[in-house]
Amino acid sequence: MYTCSLERMTDKIKTMSRFGDAGHGGITRYTLSPEDLQARGEFLKRMEAVGAEIEIDDVANIYATIPGSDPAAKRICMASHCDSVKNGGNYDGILGVMSAMEVLETVTAENIPHKHPLTAMIWTNEEGSLYPPAMMCSGIVCYDYLPEDIRAKFKYGNMMESKSILDSSKTFGDALDKSGFKGSKDNRLHPSKYKYMFETHIEQGPILEDSGKHIGGVDCVLGMFNYRVRFYGQTTHAGTFPMPKRKDAFFAASSALVYLHEEIDRLGYSDLVYTTGEVVCHPCVHTCVPDYFDFSFDARHEDPRVLEKVLDLLKTCASKIWSGCTCEIEKAWNRDTVYWDKTLVSYVKAAAEEAGIPHMYVHSGAGHDAQFASYMLPTTMIFVQSKNGLSHCEPEFSSAEHCTEGATVLLNAVLKADAE
Amino acid sequence: MYTCSLERMTDKIKTMSRFGDAGHGGITRYTLSPEDLQARGEFLKRMEAVGAEIEIDDVANIYATIPGSDPAAKRICMASHCDSVKNGGNYDGILGVMSAMEVLETVTAENIPHKHPLTAMIWTNEEGSLYPPAMMCSGIVCYDYLPEDIRAKFKYGNMMESKSILDSSKTFGDALDKSGFKGSKDNRLHPSKYKYMFETHIEQGPILEDSGKHIGGVDCVLGMFNYRVRFYGQTTHAGTFPMPKRKDAFFAASSALVYLHEEIDRLGYSDLVYTTGEVVCHPCVHTCVPDYFDFSFDARHEDPRVLEKVLDLLKTCASKIWSGCTCEIEKAWNRDTVYWDKTLVSYVKAAAEEAGIPHMYVHSGAGHDAQFASYMLPTTMIFVQSKNGLSHCEPEFSSAEHCTEGATVLLNAVLKADAE
Repeated sequence: MYTCSLERMTDKIKTMSRFGDAGHGGITRYTLSPEDLQARGEFLKRMEAVGAEIEIDDVANIYATIPGSDPAAKRICMASHCDSVKNGGNYDGILGVMSAMEVLETVTAENIPHKHPLTAMIWTNEEGSLYPPAMMCSGIVCYDYLPEDIRAKFKYGNMMESKSILDSSKTFGDALDKSGFKGSKDNRLHPSKYKYMFETHIEQGPILEDSGKHIGGVDCVLGMFNYRVRFYGQTTHAGTFPMPKRKDAFFAASSALVYLHEEIDRLGYSDLVYTTGEVVCHPCVHTCVPDYFDFSFDARHEDPRVLEKVLDLLKTCASKIWSGCTCEIEKAWNRDTVYWDKTLVSYVKAAAEEAGIPHMYVHSGAGHDAQFASYMLPTTMIFVQSKNGLSHCEPEFSSAEHCTEGATVLLNAVLKADAE
Repeated sequence: MYTCSLERMTDKIKTMSRFGDAGHGGITRYTLSPEDLQARGEFLKRMEAVGAEIEIDDVANIYATIPGSDPAAKRICMASHCDSVKNGGNYDGILGVMSAMEVLETVTAENIPHKHPLTAMIWTNEEGSLYPPAMMCSGIVCYDYLPEDIRAKFKYGNMMESKSILDSSKTFGDALDKSGFKGSKDNRLHPSKYKYMFETHIEQGPILEDSGKHIGGVDCVLGMFNYRVRFYGQTTHAGTFPMPKRKDAFFAASSALVYLHEEIDRLGYSDLVYTTGEVVCHPCVHTCVPDYFDFSFDARHEDPRVLEKVLDLLKTCASKIWSGCTCEIEKAWNRDTVYWDKTLVSYVKAAAEEAGIPHMYVHSGAGHDAQFASYMLPTTMIFVQSKNGLSHCEPEFSSAEHCTEGATVLLNAVLKADAE
């Protein structure tokens, strides 16, 4: 049983938090932005310092590999992302990268024997905050292995043409070309070269903290669906048009949202979550009645029958007229519950137990690149306790002690996999 | 009694509709944009063709003046704006400019005798769509004459620093400098040089159409207030955070909006209008629970006691906790009902009557530059019927016949004022 270094992890957290620092405790680090390139530079510097060989694939995913004792053995990969949402925190994504770095640093510093080459990896554009969709580059790399219904998520066509949400004249492909991180397709993650995939991540929920556990062995990623709910009304002038004749799309959407909360809550599933996080309002001028409003609708649960019931309510919503406005729903994507590799899950549990770190099994509600990788390689995840369960926000926090425990569990689980 | 030319008016409508044509029947013509400069160029071309003297003031307001027979007489001004909201129509604002042009063209073509110089004028940035606030340049020019509480609306400081809503690195001052339309402060509208102000505008409501009238003699602009209603919650990840612990600012705002509609409608004022047209959502990402949401709240009624009751409900709303979120309201501005100059209002009525054009008195619910001008000069407005009452949208429509009737009423009302 080996342990990782609290000192080194603390230093990495502090250093990485500077790249995209938004000035009030969190970061905005869009993929391939100058801030992201700084974080990637830091990764390269530290990985070169432990003698890792650097490879970059055609969508800027970075692989830093130290050799094992068996030249014929496939690599064991530890990956996550270093991009963030707008005004995100210092742990989502980057913790998995820092943990992978920490494993390579510990293995090198303590000269830990291992058979397989070990790879610390950065996925490009996991959040999709600037260039949708989320998990873009794991989707591209694992594309041939994805189930047909998930491939349908990539119906938008050429990902290179994904437009910046800040400036529609700029695309992901432009950013990739300019980044200096466009490498060779030959370097992509592939089963011919890689054996296992691990991803360490903050929990992003309050269950570990509420249960007094530091580490979660993740057994699955919850099934989910994501829809757009659209309302069509009529713009008129704020000052002149009588109320009863109005078709106000924002009021329609608000009424429908209140209805959906009432009806879904009535189903009584305490472990169901649903979120309406993104809105579009047109023309969005204070002197105009909105003629269009939409919101995203994201629902997650392990049991597909529960999701089906929620979808039925969404369809009922779309069949109604809301304050004179019509409503339409459109599926963006869905996914079934993904169960992690049972052997790797057991290594994580055993590693936490041997290290005496309080742990439990948890589900993941969020999507992760690991989930796409799991269609290609045996994969699992390790969760680290999140303070107050907060994430995708600036107060997001996991203690350096817990982060280091996460790396320790990752290291020892990887060594168990290595020793097979 | 003189009549304006349907043919000339039709041509002006067709020509002006090209500048900012958004491709589906309407325009986007932000102030001082290339499209706005095209419309201004067309105005200059046509006004120079009737021999008008062109003057431009320091905030790009344009004045085209033909002389009268009395060299000592003050000018009679007819003004409106040529900027639009995003995806606006072909009549709001520009109709008042085209009517003023049509009056000068008719007076010149038919050699109509008049004592006072007659001025067709364009106000800059009435909509404030790109650089808030609305009615910026009439506010600047009339500033010294405005009541103290309206001047407070200009608390934002230097209007030149008003940031583009599309690109916060660009300001109104930059656009003004680059426009080629920054003239002299000496040319500003002022009581020392101008006697009366007229503004022709589409009704933007369905009252004239529903009553079978073509033209409205406007007697007042309704009192109003404009607030921001803000909700503060907590961002968490869409997939991982249990519903009962969430503080969802968008859901909070939706619940509050439904509450406000119920309570305000219960007051039972059928002639009250209120609008929540502009929203802000943060971080506005489909995987995040929104931690902030706000909407604009605009209420209009002739009677200040009615507005007071609505404001009381808004305050009640702000005193509640909505789905775990706090609510705050902040006043953007308000105004009392503004009554137009009774003599000018009577000229409009008499002009419509003599021309045999179906007309009635109406209130204006919308704000107009004329309302700021009214603190400086005797002022009135003429409304032209709007199809289905629609405005600030692409289906906005007034027939060329009704527009020409509007110009005819303007011409004859101006001649009555001239003949005093």
